[in-house]
Amino acid sequence: MKPGGGDGPHVFVDDLEHPELREEDRHHLTRSLRLRPGDTFTASDGAGSWRIYRLGSGPEGETEAVGEVVFVEAPKPRLTIGFALIKGGRPELVVQKLTELGVDVIVPFTAEHSVVRWEADRATRHTERLRRVAREAAMQSRQVRLPDIGEPTDFAALATQPGAIRADVTGNPPSLDHPTVLIGPEGGWSESERHQLPAIRLSSSVLRSETAAITTAALLTALRDGLTATS
Amino acid sequence: MKPGGGDGPHVFVDDLEHPELREEDRHHLTRSLRLRPGDTFTASDGAGSWRIYRLGSGPEGETEAVGEVVFVEAPKPRLTIGFALIKGGRPELVVQKLTELGVDVIVPFTAEHSVVRWEADRATRHTERLRRVAREAAMQSRQVRLPDIGEPTDFAALATQPGAIRADVTGNPPSLDHPTVLIGPEGGWSESERHQLPAIRLSSSVLRSETAAITTAALLTALRDGLTATS
Repeated sequence: MKPGGGDGPHVFVDDLEHPELREEDRHHLTRSLRLRPGDTFTASDGAGSWRIYRLGSGPEGETEAVGEVVFVEAPKPRLTIGFALIKGGRPELVVQKLTELGVDVIVPFTAEHSVVRWEADRATRHTERLRRVAREAAMQSRQVRLPDIGEPTDFAALATQPGAIRADVTGNPPSLDHPTVLIGPEGGWSESERHQLPAIRLSSSVLRSETAAITTAALLTALRDGLTATS
Repeated sequence: MKPGGGDGPHVFVDDLEHPELREEDRHHLTRSLRLRPGDTFTASDGAGSWRIYRLGSGPEGETEAVGEVVFVEAPKPRLTIGFALIKGGRPELVVQKLTELGVDVIVPFTAEHSVVRWEADRATRHTERLRRVAREAAMQSRQVRLPDIGEPTDFAALATQPGAIRADVTGNPPSLDHPTVLIGPEGGWSESERHQLPAIRLSSSVLRSETAAITTAALLTALRDGLTATS
């Protein structure tokens, strides 16, 4: 069951027993969505639970729970998408769309042909930004789970996960037997990377990296939701 | 068969017998991709045919065909996606991604809850811009067909097409029996629109309009390519 039946304002809080709205979320509820004290909204802990609340008038502590905590089972299998860092890439767009679609783990990685590498402190800033993007997208799409946005890693770390596979222009159809999909850089996979992992294909077209990531999310979540079947 | 095996520089020309490169395409080939006179590339007429050429050194007329014209059958069924015009919407993103994925017809339309309407001369400018976006995306993704980007229309014009259906949060799984899908505005469908068309759903999540359009394209093209099956 979706928070509030999949409708209405939705935010994240750390603790559903003692909800404290972040300042930016209170601003979003009262300014953008024009909620007034006494209006209801839903909040999730980002870990599968949610609850209905009535907005208080003060800066904190006065928002009160209206119903009980509802726990939503995690869909299975857990889906992971790794996307190669690319020059001029739009990691925010990828994270936003993958979060909306309900991907569980999103990890940027460096492929051999990645032109871009994030150095340590830049990587931390980037990861923080991507987590903010994910949180906003999860609020908008009323998720009860926040995706796990991983620190940038390398190909090997993802390739050794059970069920990992690469997206390429040739390969087998996508399947939930391979719930971890790596999306390569625009420059394509290296010979070594090709040998380390089998491939799936997503389309008869040649897709840009960001489009391949979003398409993978659309196809795997549709398979997981039973909206399509393995061919 | 993809132009040039799905690899290498690819452009569009009006006439495959007498190819004349647009100035911007010549610039793209020689500056961005650093082709030199004598290098090969592929060109398509945007209507299913393509051919290999050798770049000439002059501004026009010297580019010569290397092989015969190859015609690629159009995939069936023809896929149409209509997307509601929305405030702050990103029609360019939608057109770019749908073109990459191989959607045949892309049409913006005004829904009852669309906050945005394009007036006549603005509509013409917008349509021209969307066609440029589609052409670039089709070059990048090496299509042999340019999608048909329709002038902004209204719900009724699309809803009366055979096989038309709406995307919504509830409904049947997507299927090629319904190759024309309408994507609603963020404000949702009106009661009247709901009554006029049955619905499919794309995800267990609540998707933004642009994400719903891209997801529809991913799911329908995968069904058409036989990469997934109807559930």
